Amino acid sequence: MLVAVDAGGSSTRAVVVDDTGACLGLGTAGSGNPISGGPESVVLALGAAVRQAIVSAEVEPGEIRGAAIAMAGSKSVRSDDGPEHAPITAGLAAAGVHAPFLVESDILAMYCAGTSDPDGYGLVAGTGAAAIRVRGGEVEATSDGTGWLLGDEGSGFWIGHRVAQAVVADLDGRGPSTTLTPLVLAQLGIDSDERPLARLVEAVYADLPVRLARLAPLAFTAGDDPTAAAIVAAASEALAHTLDSVRGADVEGPLVMGGSVLLHQQAVASAVETAFRRRGGAGPVVRVADGVAGAATLALRRRGVTVDRAVFDRIAGSLAALRHPGSG
Amino acid sequence: MLVAVDAGGSSTRAVVVDDTGACLGLGTAGSGNPISGGPESVVLALGAAVRQAIVSAEVEPGEIRGAAIAMAGSKSVRSDDGPEHAPITAGLAAAGVHAPFLVESDILAMYCAGTSDPDGYGLVAGTGAAAIRVRGGEVEATSDGTGWLLGDEGSGFWIGHRVAQAVVADLDGRGPSTTLTPLVLAQLGIDSDERPLARLVEAVYADLPVRLARLAPLAFTAGDDPTAAAIVAAASEALAHTLDSVRGADVEGPLVMGGSVLLHQQAVASAVETAFRRRGGAGPVVRVADGVAGAATLALRRRGVTVDRAVFDRIAGSLAALRHPGSG
Repeated sequence: MLVAVDAGGSSTRAVVVDDTGACLGLGTAGSGNPISGGPESVVLALGAAVRQAIVSAEVEPGEIRGAAIAMAGSKSVRSDDGPEHAPITAGLAAAGVHAPFLVESDILAMYCAGTSDPDGYGLVAGTGAAAIRVRGGEVEATSDGTGWLLGDEGSGFWIGHRVAQAVVADLDGRGPSTTLTPLVLAQLGIDSDERPLARLVEAVYADLPVRLARLAPLAFTAGDDPTAAAIVAAASEALAHTLDSVRGADVEGPLVMGGSVLLHQQAVASAVETAFRRRGGAGPVVRVADGVAGAATLALRRRGVTVDRAVFDRIAGSLAALRHPGSG
Repeated sequence: MLVAVDAGGSSTRAVVVDDTGACLGLGTAGSGNPISGGPESVVLALGAAVRQAIVSAEVEPGEIRGAAIAMAGSKSVRSDDGPEHAPITAGLAAAGVHAPFLVESDILAMYCAGTSDPDGYGLVAGTGAAAIRVRGGEVEATSDGTGWLLGDEGSGFWIGHRVAQAVVADLDGRGPSTTLTPLVLAQLGIDSDERPLARLVEAVYADLPVRLARLAPLAFTAGDDPTAAAIVAAASEALAHTLDSVRGADVEGPLVMGGSVLLHQQAVASAVETAFRRRGGAGPVVRVADGVAGAATLALRRRGVTVDRAVFDRIAGSLAALRHPGSG
C-alpha cells in the first residue's frame, strides 16, 4: 500500500494506491506549495490530505510502505535524506505515516497522469509555465519554469501581468483604449470615476506580484477586444515556443497539458496543439486536471511495479470512481 | 533664505538659496526616497544634507524661512499639513529647520533644473521612467511613472529585467545565444560551468525585483550583440512613446531629460531626441544630472520670486561654483 500526493499551489491531493494500481482512498486539502505557502503549509496540507485518503481507503497508517510527493520546483527525483524535506516528513508523520518517500517533479506527475507512454512531452500553464521532454519515464529536458520575474511565459501570471500593464497604459494615455479596463476596475472594486489609475497602481503594489495571475481570466472574457486578443495570442505563441524548445527529433508525442490556462482556455490549448502538430508532433494530445494519478504511477514505478497500459487504466478508472462516487 | 532639496532614490542634495537666486551652500547625503528606503531614510538623509548645506552656507538654521522638497511619487504640490509628511518635518527639524515646506514633483524639479521656460517637457529614465508636460511652470500632464511592475517602460529596471530574461532564455534554450549571458554571470559572480541557470534564478529571486536595474548597463556594453541592441532600441522607442503621450499641440519644447539611462547612454538620449523632433518637438534639448537647481527654482517661485532667465542663470552658476569650487 502506497500513498501518492500532488502538492499544488492551490490544492493538495493524496491517494492511497495498492500495487495493482487500484486507488482505494482520496483526500484533498489546500495549498501545500513550499515556495508560495512556506514549509508550515506543506505540513498542514500534506497531513490533512494524506490522513483523509487513509481514512477513506479504510487502511491503517502503518500499512503505508512508501510515498511519492509531486511538488513544484522539484525538477528531478530526490531522496528523503535532505533537511529540506523535513516538512514532508512532518506532514506524513501528522497522518501517522512513517514510510520512506521520494519527491517528484510536479510536471512529470502531470505527464504521467495523462499517459502510460514512457516517452513524450508535458506542458503546464497555471500560475507558472514550463515544458518537459520525457524519455523512459524520466524528465530528459526542461524549458522555462523560471518563475514570474524571469520567465513563466504564457502562464496565468504572465497573462494577468500583461492585462494590468495594458489597463495602466490605457488609463494613462500611453496605450489604446481596451475593454479590459472596465473589467479589471470592476474586479478590483475600483470606481472608474475616482482616480482609477492611482487606485489601480496602489492596489497592485499593495499585493504580491504573483497575485496578478487572478486578472488572467479577464483576457478571455473581453470578447473581440484587440488588446485582449493580442495577449491571448502572445501567450499561446509563448507556450508553443516553450514546448518547441524541448522537442527531441526522436520523440514525437504524446503531449500532456495541464494547469488552469491550458485546462480552461480552449483557445490557448487549441493553438498550442496546432503549433505542436505543425512542428511534427504526433500522438494523442491529452489535458489533465491534476497530477495525482501520475503521482500514483510514480509511487508504483519507484517500488518496482511496471505501470503498463492496463495498470495505468486501473489507476485512472479507480481514481475516477473515487472522485465521482455516484457515476460508477 | 530658503532651502531646496532633491531627494532621489540613490542620493539627496540640498542647497541654501537666497531670494536673488544665489546658492550659498550645498549638502549631499544618501537615499531619501520614502518608497525604496522607508520613512527613516528620509529623516536621516534630509537632515544630513540640509545640515551640511546650512553649515556650508555659513547661515543659522533659524534664518531659513521656507523649504521645497522634490521627491519621487509627488506628482503635484502638496501642503505640509498631512501626516505623510511627518518624516520631512522630522528631517528638517534634525537640521534645526522649523520653516514651512512644500513637497514638489521630482520630475518637475528636474525640468526646472534644465530651463527657465514655463512651458515644455520633462522626461526621466533612471530606475523608473516618466514624462511630464509643463505649462505655466506646473505639471499639466503625466505619462507612465507607474512603477516596475506596471510600467516604467524604458527605465533602468525595464532594461535590466529584459537583460535577465534574455539570459535565462539563452541558458534554458528558449532564446538565442547572447553576449549578455557571460556579462551577467560575471557581474553576479556565477561560474558558467556550474548550473548557471539554477544559480542565476536563485540569485534574482533572493534579491528585490527593482535590483534588476543594476544589470541595465550591461545592455550598453554588449557591443553589437543583437539581443542587447534590440533591448536598447526597445527602451528608446518606449521612452519616445511615453514622451509623445504627453505632447500638447501648442507646447513645442524645450525638452529636459534626466535619470541615469538618459544621462549616461548617449544612444538612448539621441534616439529619443530624434523621435521628439520628428514629431514636431522644437527648442533646446537639455540633459541634467539632478534636480537640485530646479528645487531651488521651485522654492523661490513658491515664495513669490519670479525666476526669469537671469535668476535661473544665477542659480545655475552659483550652484556650479559650489559643486566645483576650484573652477570658478
